[in-house]
Amino acid sequence: MKTAGELIYEGKAKKIFSTSDENIFLMKFKNSLTAFNALKKGEFEGKGSLNCQISTHFFKILKQNNIPLHWLETISNDEMKVLKTNVIPLEVVVRNFTAGSIVKKLGLQEGVSFSKPLIEFYYKKDELQDPFVSTEQILHFEWATEKDIEEIKEHTFKINQILKTEFAKVGLRLVDFKIEFGKDTNGKILLCDEISPDSMRIWDEKTLEKLDKDRFRLDLGSVEKGYQEILNRLTQK
Amino acid sequence: MKTAGELIYEGKAKKIFSTSDENIFLMKFKNSLTAFNALKKGEFEGKGSLNCQISTHFFKILKQNNIPLHWLETISNDEMKVLKTNVIPLEVVVRNFTAGSIVKKLGLQEGVSFSKPLIEFYYKKDELQDPFVSTEQILHFEWATEKDIEEIKEHTFKINQILKTEFAKVGLRLVDFKIEFGKDTNGKILLCDEISPDSMRIWDEKTLEKLDKDRFRLDLGSVEKGYQEILNRLTQK
Repeated sequence: MKTAGELIYEGKAKKIFSTSDENIFLMKFKNSLTAFNALKKGEFEGKGSLNCQISTHFFKILKQNNIPLHWLETISNDEMKVLKTNVIPLEVVVRNFTAGSIVKKLGLQEGVSFSKPLIEFYYKKDELQDPFVSTEQILHFEWATEKDIEEIKEHTFKINQILKTEFAKVGLRLVDFKIEFGKDTNGKILLCDEISPDSMRIWDEKTLEKLDKDRFRLDLGSVEKGYQEILNRLTQK
Repeated sequence: MKTAGELIYEGKAKKIFSTSDENIFLMKFKNSLTAFNALKKGEFEGKGSLNCQISTHFFKILKQNNIPLHWLETISNDEMKVLKTNVIPLEVVVRNFTAGSIVKKLGLQEGVSFSKPLIEFYYKKDELQDPFVSTEQILHFEWATEKDIEEIKEHTFKINQILKTEFAKVGLRLVDFKIEFGKDTNGKILLCDEISPDSMRIWDEKTLEKLDKDRFRLDLGSVEKGYQEILNRLTQK
């Protein structure tokens, strides 16, 4: 049965379709991979499905922990029903260990634990390459209110704690991740992003092997194997 | 009479010498100009003197307004006695109108008034090209405490208000500026920077002609004339 209707939006890793309910969208995970603001492109068969399954795994746990989500249900290997939201134009990053852009920007060593999780905001705007922004700028340009930011921070640190714990149970280290939020029709803030190796850094706790999109970014090979390994461990296969 | 002793530090635009009092330094303004993290270099005769005189003009006014300063007295055309401070490694930027890096970063039009002054912090580290940082990063890396930041913000907005008013009196627009702070031996936060066209954007209010270091950055010519014009107007020559 085809529940998907009109294509509303196509992003780098997902497509959004309308459904018969105007408040509900169908979100389909794509097999394509992009990095460095889409300058580098690739894809592998089954990536959409892996990301959808990993996201679903975490959405269930987050729901049990009362994190407000746009996720309603997963209806196939690579499709979810989600609530329609007004996107808050911020990418919210949490860092537990040093890696990626901050290493270069602040001249740090990779893989060093932060004394406590560090939160960062990036303005979501492809043509500006998602610049790093301060709270003062967010408030000034009215991308979010002070209350929104407080709520986003609270959700984000709680999500980080839950994910970190879940990964640690299966010998994986959550180095950092990116999430996004939106508001439902009542103005309630919801997590409205995937939770997948596309937007996280996950290392094996013992070998420190990178299992996430850095395998693609850094041409380490076996991208699919990395993603599959994460899903297998989480679901204890 | 030569009061200067040992050269303690040479920066891009100033030299610092020891004096007979270990808590007091002599600060000598240089004629050199640099831009784009010192990739572009130049100089003109008298620049040090112009900047010293403009800074002196404002330090007197700021002192009357109870802004804590490292400045003690100006002892020649290009030399000041200043209190020794422990530098807080932040460049504090205030923007009244859009110009410079923020225009490019956020895709803005130049010369648009901010609804209220926008403050930004940059981590002072030449080899990292003084990256833009958030309050969360400042606190995390302990470049300053929450109390320091509050105090710095308070001083900075007050300084901005005073400078804006002084420039407006003589038909000049304070577009933006950069200042730095340090702590004296008692831990008191002091403004410890110059206040000169090297670190401000000053436009003629009517013609919008740029009179500051952008003349040098953008190869507009007559750099010296711009600086001289600012000093002349401020001192009503």
